Amino acid sequence: MALKEIMAVIRPNKVLTTKKALDEIGITSFTAYRVLGRGKQGGRVSELAYPVSEDLKRKLEDAPPSFIPKRLLMIVVKDSDVDLVVQKIIRVNRTGEQGDGKIFVLPVDDALRLRTGEHGLEALI
Amino acid sequence: MALKEIMAVIRPNKVLTTKKALDEIGITSFTAYRVLGRGKQGGRVSELAYPVSEDLKRKLEDAPPSFIPKRLLMIVVKDSDVDLVVQKIIRVNRTGEQGDGKIFVLPVDDALRLRTGEHGLEALI
Amino acid sequence: MALKEIMAVIRPNKVLTTKKALDEIGITSFTAYRVLGRGKQGGRVSELAYPVSEDLKRKLEDAPPSFIPKRLLMIVVKDSDVDLVVQKIIRVNRTGEQGDGKIFVLPVDDALRLRTGEHGLEALI
Repeated sequence: MALKEIMAVIRPNKVLTTKKALDEIGITSFTAYRVLGRGKQGGRVSELAYPVSEDLKRKLEDAPPSFIPKRLLMIVVKDSDVDLVVQKIIRVNRTGEQGDGKIFVLPVDDALRLRTGEHGLEALI
Repeated sequence: MALKEIMAVIRPNKVLTTKKALDEIGITSFTAYRVLGRGKQGGRVSELAYPVSEDLKRKLEDAPPSFIPKRLLMIVVKDSDVDLVVQKIIRVNRTGEQGDGKIFVLPVDDALRLRTGEHGLEALI
Repeated sequence: MALKEIMAVIRPNKVLTTKKALDEIGITSFTAYRVLGRGKQGGRVSELAYPVSEDLKRKLEDAPPSFIPKRLLMIVVKDSDVDLVVQKIIRVNRTGEQGDGKIFVLPVDDALRLRTGEHGLEALI
């Protein structure tokens, strides 16, 4: 059975709720890292991860689009789980505001657990 | 239409010019992150992202090859845009010196915008 | 000849030995970055990258599973080198304890060296 990599670029404050949501459907293994996103609309003050003064806010809004802190979750699942995982990620990450992020699905040839040498589906379970 | 992931490992000081170059061809959405590169020639003092004393420079040059700070840009585009994007990245990143970096192109099955649920090409535009 | 991306999620303290092991088989080019891993068994105190007091240790062990610092190595090799590289990574990373990490192998369409424009296998050598 084929494996797929799901790459979800999400808001930093959505990592824990996404993790819990994935737990609920038995997806307990993934990798997360800090990235900077540059979306269609550029950086927006409302997306800042920290509070800023009104003055700085105006300056930032006048500035050219910039990078926004995001988190990238990398989850390898079996092909038949992709839809379930994607729907779960959508459910907890969609706010309807710009900057909700994106998901990419990539083909994966094989997975291997270093401790045991299990590979394919066995490495995921 | 098929999607591709372009992964460009570039010098940290080339991120902004690369971003501007991609803007010019309508590629406004990508993800960036800090990585460490270990190239064929190992780490070189000329690649350091910060100034060092002549003394430290000599010590570093005598040391075994090490890791060099790089930035990884991840850009998902439609198949027919790969050449254009790659050529644009080459144009602003080629200095002719060791350490200019590399580009990898990977197949992508699907892309999805979390806010709207649009997928495929619609998620990129 | 086809190219493959090997993504190895390993313990932070195994990066240098893995690098040396890859050097021995002529694999001198790769990219490394800091990630957080969330494995099947959740975070474990024995995996912490820094020493903690006995008191904090007990609190951590009672806490829900969390994220563990890992390093992700990304190595692009030719198809016929995948087994050799994977075996080498296993040899230096397997401790038999939870948290040894995982390897994923993904298809790669092309590689390109920014300095010279060489692509395919030529970009790796």
